[in-house]
Amino acid sequence: RHYRIAVIPGDGIGKEVVPEGVRILETAAEKFGFRLDLEHHAFGSCDYYAEHGTMLPANWKELLTPTDAIFFGAVGWPATVPDHISLWGSLLQFRREFDQYVNLRPVRLMPGVPCPLAGREPGDIDFYVVRENTEGEYSSVGGTMYPGTEREIVIQETVMSRHGVDRILKFAFDLAQSRPKKHLTSATKSNGIAITMPYWDQRVEAMGERYPEVRRDKYHIDILTAHFVLNPDRFDVVVGSNLFGDILSDLGPACTGTIGIAPSANINPEGRFPSLFEPVHGSAPDIAGQGIANPVGQIWTAAMMLEHLGEVDAAHAIVAAIETALRDPASRTRDLKGTASTREAAEAVLRAFAAA
Amino acid sequence: RHYRIAVIPGDGIGKEVVPEGVRILETAAEKFGFRLDLEHHAFGSCDYYAEHGTMLPANWKELLTPTDAIFFGAVGWPATVPDHISLWGSLLQFRREFDQYVNLRPVRLMPGVPCPLAGREPGDIDFYVVRENTEGEYSSVGGTMYPGTEREIVIQETVMSRHGVDRILKFAFDLAQSRPKKHLTSATKSNGIAITMPYWDQRVEAMGERYPEVRRDKYHIDILTAHFVLNPDRFDVVVGSNLFGDILSDLGPACTGTIGIAPSANINPEGRFPSLFEPVHGSAPDIAGQGIANPVGQIWTAAMMLEHLGEVDAAHAIVAAIETALRDPASRTRDLKGTASTREAAEAVLRAFAAA
Ligand SMILES: CC(C)[C@H](C(=O)O)[C@@H](O)C(=O)O
Ligand SMILES: CC(C)[C@H](C(=O)O)[C@@H](O)C(=O)O
Repeated sequence: RHYRIAVIPGDGIGKEVVPEGVRILETAAEKFGFRLDLEHHAFGSCDYYAEHGTMLPANWKELLTPTDAIFFGAVGWPATVPDHISLWGSLLQFRREFDQYVNLRPVRLMPGVPCPLAGREPGDIDFYVVRENTEGEYSSVGGTMYPGTEREIVIQETVMSRHGVDRILKFAFDLAQSRPKKHLTSATKSNGIAITMPYWDQRVEAMGERYPEVRRDKYHIDILTAHFVLNPDRFDVVVGSNLFGDILSDLGPACTGTIGIAPSANINPEGRFPSLFEPVHGSAPDIAGQGIANPVGQIWTAAMMLEHLGEVDAAHAIVAAIETALRDPASRTRDLKGTASTREAAEAVLRAFAAA
Repeated sequence: RHYRIAVIPGDGIGKEVVPEGVRILETAAEKFGFRLDLEHHAFGSCDYYAEHGTMLPANWKELLTPTDAIFFGAVGWPATVPDHISLWGSLLQFRREFDQYVNLRPVRLMPGVPCPLAGREPGDIDFYVVRENTEGEYSSVGGTMYPGTEREIVIQETVMSRHGVDRILKFAFDLAQSRPKKHLTSATKSNGIAITMPYWDQRVEAMGERYPEVRRDKYHIDILTAHFVLNPDRFDVVVGSNLFGDILSDLGPACTGTIGIAPSANINPEGRFPSLFEPVHGSAPDIAGQGIANPVGQIWTAAMMLEHLGEVDAAHAIVAAIETALRDPASRTRDLKGTASTREAAEAVLRAFAAA
């Protein structure tokens, strides 16, 4: 077993936590007997932009397409490069051009993480958010009429295709089917958004007929966010459009205490293009450069990547090591009310991993 | 002082809680010396639809326009009438046709309500969500291409006008300006929704310049929902588009324990048309007809309506009576882990109101 991995740390704390993710990857390769060829890239960062005037080199597709996966940190440094340039010029471009139409994010309450919800214990919250990642509300189709005047009108189109909706639903139903609870929740807003959302509902029903074993329900996005807070134990697999999935996959991790430790996968399930793995958190300019960022999100991301590559045992061992490390208050960073540095927190996971 | 009020109970628990709201209104009128002319209407309900084939009579505008306010319950009975007919045929039509472009919803942690967030006390959470209520993501503009085929494409447009955006922002800034904290948070998603949302940001900045005393910040909607859970004490006035405001005004009340008690106002600030007052909760078919619905949402709604009409003392007295009643476990309905019936819970508020 031999994998070619592109490593793109990006900006801010991305540059601090990616090396910790790489260390666990290298340790896992040794321990579980596979080989990793890591190709480190400085592009996809605002530093790169400052030097070259673009976020990516012209040949980025040639460089990345042959890899098995992309291990990504975080991108964005708004003080020097506006978000729409840094994000649309890197991360969002990867998602589109590599047709990573699945954004998969686990929501799991981990030991040692102070949960903002009263009375919830690890085990109570354990589900996945499956987000459509290429179309929907993020289409950049639209424009402005009468710009700069009192009569100004700005229009942006939400675009859903049968192709795009069905493939994300299929992924979500497959995932639900593979889990013990076999339960799928669809995020909708068909009572208010009267064209695209009823269409979404209709495709969910059509797809559901192909999965008779999967129990399904749907909630409008407004009340669904309420249930994330009031009844997070109700969920197993939650599927939503690009925007709804985006919201739910920040809200979910927040309900489990922090978005600082949550991982995410941008997947091209057919494997025609490499999939991209990144923590849910961003580049966090406010704490960058201080060595205090929580490395757990990036390390958990490494586990998600290995699972995707088929190294399931290694992946599970990493998640178990994270759980062990988090149980010890001394290994927690300050976002978890601890005092550990990025290095110390990562070291604790590595130790638990080595000991297992 | 003399007010003409249209009373529309609608469906489900609307029919059970509106009478309780009316009783507090009548008691308040007597106690505070103003007069109410209540005009009761059966339209705007699915029962009415069953009989007449429409949600509203042809002359609904003539009937309602001369009133000072509309006291609304809840609409919807999906088992017999699809949501898009019942909602777009009544509530959403009122909002549009009466140009109720402000949807105002208080988020306040009340005594006696079990808070799902660990360690939060009454006083910690107390803010307003101001939602744009007429345009944005709820435009019904769009359509389908290649319907029913593999190539199907469905498009819906988000439409923002300078007129529509500026007037809701002005309302929100005015509200922030009037409050001690003078703090306004804008909900955006300009890093992903690349046309309408940057426009929203730009109008927030432009409007902000007219309010130098108001401190303002903005969050993308994904992380904003996370902060509602993690840092609800951070907010004072939160303003959002139709969809974002919708989400935040369910999530906010959920973070304070229940959407069963939250009120809301659909306001036409210029007073050209009547404003409409309704609880945030819906018609709740699952518990309708059992006499167990929580009447507090409708009673708090009565207070919001009186405040809007200028009866500020009466409004404050009602809210105080709600707080007194909720402190007693015996006056809480089962959604608040109590055993009181709708009647008993309302009676407790009335008693506290009379005693004050
Ligand atoms: C019922 C529905 C159409 C409505 C909305 O989305 O506006 C409701 O959720 C609300 O918040 O008043
Ligand atoms: C940075 C932003 C454009 C991005 C998104 O909305 O997709 C992020 O929030 C995410 O969830 O990956």
